[in-house]
Amino acid sequence: MQHFLKHKAALDMAVEACATREYWSAFTESPSRTLHPAGAHEAGKTAFEARLNTPFPLDQPGEIGRIGFEISPYTQAPLGIDYPHVDVDVIMSASKTAMHSWKAISPEERVGLCFEMAFALEEQCFENAYATMHTAGQAFLMAYSGSGPNALDRGIEALTYAHKAMSDIATSATWTKPFGKAGVVTLKKSYRLMPRGTAIVVCCATFPMWNAYPAIFANLATGNPVIVKPHPNGILPVAIAVKKMRAILEGAGHDPNLVIMAADTRDAPITIDLLQHETTAIIDYTGSQRFGTWIEKNCADKLVFTETAGCNGVVIHSTDNLKGLISGLANALCGFSAQMCTSPQNIHVPKDGFISDEGPISFNEFKDRLSQTIRDRLAEPRRAAAMCGAIQADQSLAILRDLQTDPRAQIALDTRPYDHPEFPNARTATPLILEVGAKDRPLYQEEHFAPVSFLIKEESAEAALENATTLAREFGAISSYLYSADDDFTEKAQDAFANAGASLWCNMTVPMPINFAAAYSDFHVTGLNPAGNACLSDLAFVANRFRIVQFRSPA
Amino acid sequence: MQHFLKHKAALDMAVEACATREYWSAFTESPSRTLHPAGAHEAGKTAFEARLNTPFPLDQPGEIGRIGFEISPYTQAPLGIDYPHVDVDVIMSASKTAMHSWKAISPEERVGLCFEMAFALEEQCFENAYATMHTAGQAFLMAYSGSGPNALDRGIEALTYAHKAMSDIATSATWTKPFGKAGVVTLKKSYRLMPRGTAIVVCCATFPMWNAYPAIFANLATGNPVIVKPHPNGILPVAIAVKKMRAILEGAGHDPNLVIMAADTRDAPITIDLLQHETTAIIDYTGSQRFGTWIEKNCADKLVFTETAGCNGVVIHSTDNLKGLISGLANALCGFSAQMCTSPQNIHVPKDGFISDEGPISFNEFKDRLSQTIRDRLAEPRRAAAMCGAIQADQSLAILRDLQTDPRAQIALDTRPYDHPEFPNARTATPLILEVGAKDRPLYQEEHFAPVSFLIKEESAEAALENATTLAREFGAISSYLYSADDDFTEKAQDAFANAGASLWCNMTVPMPINFAAAYSDFHVTGLNPAGNACLSDLAFVANRFRIVQFRSPA
Repeated sequence: MQHFLKHKAALDMAVEACATREYWSAFTESPSRTLHPAGAHEAGKTAFEARLNTPFPLDQPGEIGRIGFEISPYTQAPLGIDYPHVDVDVIMSASKTAMHSWKAISPEERVGLCFEMAFALEEQCFENAYATMHTAGQAFLMAYSGSGPNALDRGIEALTYAHKAMSDIATSATWTKPFGKAGVVTLKKSYRLMPRGTAIVVCCATFPMWNAYPAIFANLATGNPVIVKPHPNGILPVAIAVKKMRAILEGAGHDPNLVIMAADTRDAPITIDLLQHETTAIIDYTGSQRFGTWIEKNCADKLVFTETAGCNGVVIHSTDNLKGLISGLANALCGFSAQMCTSPQNIHVPKDGFISDEGPISFNEFKDRLSQTIRDRLAEPRRAAAMCGAIQADQSLAILRDLQTDPRAQIALDTRPYDHPEFPNARTATPLILEVGAKDRPLYQEEHFAPVSFLIKEESAEAALENATTLAREFGAISSYLYSADDDFTEKAQDAFANAGASLWCNMTVPMPINFAAAYSDFHVTGLNPAGNACLSDLAFVANRFRIVQFRSPA
Repeated sequence: MQHFLKHKAALDMAVEACATREYWSAFTESPSRTLHPAGAHEAGKTAFEARLNTPFPLDQPGEIGRIGFEISPYTQAPLGIDYPHVDVDVIMSASKTAMHSWKAISPEERVGLCFEMAFALEEQCFENAYATMHTAGQAFLMAYSGSGPNALDRGIEALTYAHKAMSDIATSATWTKPFGKAGVVTLKKSYRLMPRGTAIVVCCATFPMWNAYPAIFANLATGNPVIVKPHPNGILPVAIAVKKMRAILEGAGHDPNLVIMAADTRDAPITIDLLQHETTAIIDYTGSQRFGTWIEKNCADKLVFTETAGCNGVVIHSTDNLKGLISGLANALCGFSAQMCTSPQNIHVPKDGFISDEGPISFNEFKDRLSQTIRDRLAEPRRAAAMCGAIQADQSLAILRDLQTDPRAQIALDTRPYDHPEFPNARTATPLILEVGAKDRPLYQEEHFAPVSFLIKEESAEAALENATTLAREFGAISSYLYSADDDFTEKAQDAFANAGASLWCNMTVPMPINFAAAYSDFHVTGLNPAGNACLSDLAFVANRFRIVQFRSPA
C-alpha cells in the first residue's frame, strides 16, 4: 500500500473535487519559469531536440523492426525518429501476462501507482510539450497544458472515478439469515475485483494525451493492461509518456508490459488488428466520427468507449455583452486553428440580427465585427502564432481550399497563411468564415476539420435553436454555445439542447477560452449524440472496466 | 418529493445493505399465514382463479387485437387468458411520450415512486405466486419468493444502485479559476441527468419477475420508460405486475405508459421487432445463451444487459461434512427440477473418490449415496411436489428422453414422473443423473435445460478443477461449487474460478438451498463468461442507463 498511502491526500482532494465540481488541480498548470525548477523548460526542450533524427529507445517485447514517419507542422520536415514496429500477437501475449500479476495487487495500490506515474509524467511536461507542438501543431502554451497538467488532471479525474467505483464494493461480509425450520445460516463472503483484459487506447493526432491519460489510468487502476496506439503523426508524445510509465512500473517492481506502445504509419496501419484481436477486451478511441461509429458497430464483443467529433453550434439570440461575445467567439475560432473537438463551427444568427447592450446589431454588422476582431487579433504574427499554432494535417488546407470556392457559401473572412515568427515553413492558416443560408445544411452539417466556421443566416433565434439542436442530435456536438439575455429563451434552449443530448455553455463572454473543459467540473461528451458514447469522467466511464467475482462458504 | 420522503428510511437501509452486504429485506419473505393479513393468501388464490378463461384487462395504447396462449405445467391445460396484442410502433411512440414528463421529475422522486410500486407489488404476491406456479411450474413456496419478496429485493437492490449512481452527481457547482493575466473567472454550472430512451425488458419462462424487477426499476429510476416482453408461456405474472405498476403511476399523476406490456406467442414472436426498433435504447434480456449472444452481437447500437445460462460445475476435492455435501447437492438437483440458472449440472468427481469425514469415499459410493438421497427425498409425493415443482416446457422432457439413451452416458439415477398430489396431470420429472467420462465433454459442456446432472469421472481433483474452470470460461457459469477440506486446494480453486470469470460457492453444506442468491449480498452473474454480460446489481448495471447534460454560464 506504499503508493496508495503516499498519494492518499491527493486522492482525497480529487474525490472532493469530483463531488463539488469546484476548481482543483494536483499539477502546476502554468509553464511559467517562476513555478518550475530552474532550467526545467530548457532541459525539456533539449531533451526533445535530442530525440530528433534518432531511434527512440523503448525496450518492449515483440519488436520486429522499426517504424514511424512524423512530420512537424512547424518545419514540415520529418522528425526522423523511429520506434519499435511490434508484432501484434507478441505484445498481446505480453500484455496478458502482465495482467496476471497486476490484478493480484490491491485496487488501492494500483490507484497509488497511477498517481505515482501521473506525478512522474508531470516532470516531462516540457519535453512532451515540444513533442506535442511538433506533431500536433499546437502552440507551446497549449501543448504544455494539453499534454501536461490539463491532460493529467483528466487522467486523475478518471482514476478517481475508478477508485470510487472499486471502493464501492465491500471486500468481505458476514451474512446471517434464518431459513425457517432449517435454522439460522451464517456465511462468510468475499468479493474480488477482476479486470476484463487488454485495453487498446487509440490516440488522436491533435491532442495525443488529453484523452489518453484518462483511458490509461482508468484501465490500469481497474487491473487492465494497456496498449497505446498513437496516431501515425503523433507518436513522439505517446512514446515519451509510455517510456516514463514503463520505467515507473518497473521501478516499483511491476511488469512494464502493463503499458505498451504499438506505433504504425499511415501506409501500414495496425489499428484494426489491435481492436479486433481476441485478447482485446476494452477499446478507448478518440478520433473521427466515422471510425468511431465503425468501432461501435464492429467491435460489439469489446467494451467500447468513444470520443469523436460533432459540428458544435453557437445560437445567438441576444446579449448584454456584445464585446465579450465577439471576443470570446473570435478566440474560440482562432484557438489552435479550431482543431479542437470543442471548437465552435456553426454560428446560427438571426437574419435580422439581434439585440445587444450596444443596441440592435444586424447580421452584417455582426459578421463584420467578428471578422474584424479576428483580423486585428492575428495581425501581429507572434500573437497569431500563440493563438493559432499550426495546422496538423495538409488535409485541413485542402478542406479550406474546397470551401473557399464552394458556390453555396460567401466568404465573410478569408483564410490566409500567417507568417510564423519562429518557423518560416510552418503550415498555418487563419480562420475562414463563410456566410451560408440555413437551407445549406449539407454544407455545414458535418465537422470540417479545419479553421472554418459558418455564419448561418437563420429566420429567427427560434429557428436557429431548432436547427442547432437538430444538428446536435443527428450529427453530434461536444460543446454548444448560446448567447441570450432572455431568461425564457435560455431556459427553452437548455431544454432543447438537453433533449438533443448536448451540453450548453451560455453567455461565455468571460476572459477565458470559451471552449475550455475543466477536469473535475465539466463533463466532457454526453454519450447521447453521435459525438461519442463515453464521458470524461463519470461512473459509467469506469464501472464496467472491472467485474466482481465472489466467494462464499459457511462461517 | 412526496414518495421519496415516504420511502427514505427504507432506501437508507438498502444503501447500507448494499455496502455491508449483510442480510436485509424490505419485504415479508415467508407466505406464512401468521405474517400476512387474514385471508391474504386465499384472496390471492381467488384473484388468480378469477383471471382464468377471461380476457386480461390492461388498458394500454396500441391494442390491435388479443393474443396469448399459456399452458399450465400443473394442469397441462391452457389458462384461457388473452392479453392486448399491441402495435409495436404505437407502444414505442407512447413510451417515448411518457419519457418526456417522467424525465422532468427529480431522480429522487422517481426512486420514491419505484419504492411505492415495489410495496404495492408485494400486496399481489399471493396472486402472482399462483400465476407463476401455473406458467413457470414452480412450487408454491418458490413462486411466492421468486416472483415476490426475493424478486422485489433484487428490484430494490438495483433501484438502490441507480440512486447511488445518480446521487453521485452534483446538481450544481460554482467554479472559480484564475486565468493568468485575464483574471479570475467564476462560472455557475448545473448538471441534468438524462434518460437514454425506451428500455425493453425481456423476461424468461421460469423466473418471470426475478430479473424483471431489477431491470424495470433500474430503468424507471434513471428516467427510461419500460416495455416488458414476457415469455409466451409466462405472460400472466408479468401482466399482473404491469397492471399494478401502471395503476400506481397513474394514481400518482404520471403517465402509465412508462410501463407497457408487449405480449406475444411462440407462433407470432415480436421480440426482435422490439429489440431492433429505432426507439429502443436499452435492452435487458434474460433467457437462453444463444439468443443473448445474438442480441449482444446484433443490437450493438443499444445498451445491452444479458443474463443467460451456463453449465454450472461442482468440483469435489474432499469434505469434512459428507452428509451436508450430499444433502445440499441433492436439494439443488431437485430444487424446481433444476430449472434455475444457478442449479448445478456438472459434478466433477475424482475417479478414485475423495477423502471425507467418514473416511475415503469411492466414486461409486458417492454416486450411490447421492442417488439414494434423492430417491428417499422424493419418495413421498407431497415432498417431491414441494421440491421439484413441475417441468415448465415439454422440451425438457424431450431432453431427458434423448439423454436417457445417449450411448456415452450411463444412468446413475433414472428420471421418472412423480405423482403430483394435487394436480394429477402435472408435467413432472425427478432428477436424472448420468455418469460420464471426462472426455465426453461435448455431452455436458452446454446447459441442458432439464432436471439432469452429470457425474463426471475425473482423473483427479486437479483435473476436475481444470475441466470445470475451462467449461466456465468457454461455455459460461452462473454459480459454481467447490467441496474441499484442504485450504491450499480451496485457494487454488478460488484463483482458478476467478480467472475463469466465475464466482465460487465453497463447502455449501449448510441447511439452506446451496444455490440461493441473496439480494444486497450475492452478486449474480459476473459478466466475465458467456453466461451474461451484466450483474445484479453493481454500479455497472445502472451507471450507463442515464447520461449527464451540463449547463454553464458566468456567475
